[in-house]
Amino acid sequence: MEKIRKQMVFLQEIDKIKDIMRQSLVLNKRRENDAEHSWHMAMTAITLKEYFIGKIDMERVLKMILIHDLVEIYAGDTPAYGTDRPDKREEETRAAEKIFSLLPKDQESELLNLWLEFEDCETEDAKYANVCDRYQGLMQNLTSDGHTWKKYNVHIDKVLERSHVIKLYTPKLFDGYVMPELEKYMERGIIRR
Amino acid sequence: MEKIRKQMVFLQEIDKIKDIMRQSLVLNKRRENDAEHSWHMAMTAITLKEYFIGKIDMERVLKMILIHDLVEIYAGDTPAYGTDRPDKREEETRAAEKIFSLLPKDQESELLNLWLEFEDCETEDAKYANVCDRYQGLMQNLTSDGHTWKKYNVHIDKVLERSHVIKLYTPKLFDGYVMPELEKYMERGIIRR
Repeated sequence: MEKIRKQMVFLQEIDKIKDIMRQSLVLNKRRENDAEHSWHMAMTAITLKEYFIGKIDMERVLKMILIHDLVEIYAGDTPAYGTDRPDKREEETRAAEKIFSLLPKDQESELLNLWLEFEDCETEDAKYANVCDRYQGLMQNLTSDGHTWKKYNVHIDKVLERSHVIKLYTPKLFDGYVMPELEKYMERGIIRR
Repeated sequence: MEKIRKQMVFLQEIDKIKDIMRQSLVLNKRRENDAEHSWHMAMTAITLKEYFIGKIDMERVLKMILIHDLVEIYAGDTPAYGTDRPDKREEETRAAEKIFSLLPKDQESELLNLWLEFEDCETEDAKYANVCDRYQGLMQNLTSDGHTWKKYNVHIDKVLERSHVIKLYTPKLFDGYVMPELEKYMERGIIRR
């Protein structure tokens, strides 16, 4: 019963992610939270798989996506176009250790390792999960008339830097959809060039 | 490019699920939406797998969970303890056909079939996904002092009817955690008996 109780504490603690707010707008009207972002990012993974240049294990990708922002319960969100946070990785690693330590040992180590793998972005699964992260953020800009691009008066170089993994690992998606969309926002002066 | 465009329309349309509100409370303070519920339910699936009496394919279970409430974008939410809706299955089936028809043919048929499988609750994967659905709803009551149980002045028979799949397919979880918790709420008079 001790094991069940640990799992319940974990499942109840992560309810808090629904209160961690991002800069993106939902339905072009209110800020999105991390639970919504993670759900939408998982749907992106299911939908856009064919554009990824490598081979992935969808179960691992979905798990990585579902847990990737749990650290923000303790470490907070870092806006894509906000100021740099040099201590981010360290703070988030401590947060990851804290949240996953609520679980029984075997699950703690599985999820902590998946989180680290996502952050390191070196395996195929992690690369695709990171593409989905960046794509979901970009999509919320496309459905809110460039809300965070406007807010941070962003330059195309910064957007391209953020979208780097999309270009690298899902080039057809980047060339066929993302870049043409960015062009439109540049033409309208919403993204600086 | 026509294919990419269809997938984008789908991914943007499903943003609307973040506005479909349930009766459950998040962090004991505001109503939960379907995106948050689906994310939390997926985390439940990852965490409680060992209690399921059968064998599951986690990739299929997670996909089923992530898409199971998309129909509510058009058909609305049906509160667990609200009035019966005899036309629910028919309305939701039409909604499923509508939302998945936005996708390219192969993905449309994969996701529509997964949704039907979840609803029919006959395969191992669907049974476990349904356990997670019921468990997530119950958990939000446990973290909000029985909010929807109070609201609908609910009788234990109704709660047990809702929790039937938990008892049937994850008996250790039911006996070791769920039933003892329900007992406490009965003792406090929040659940009628």
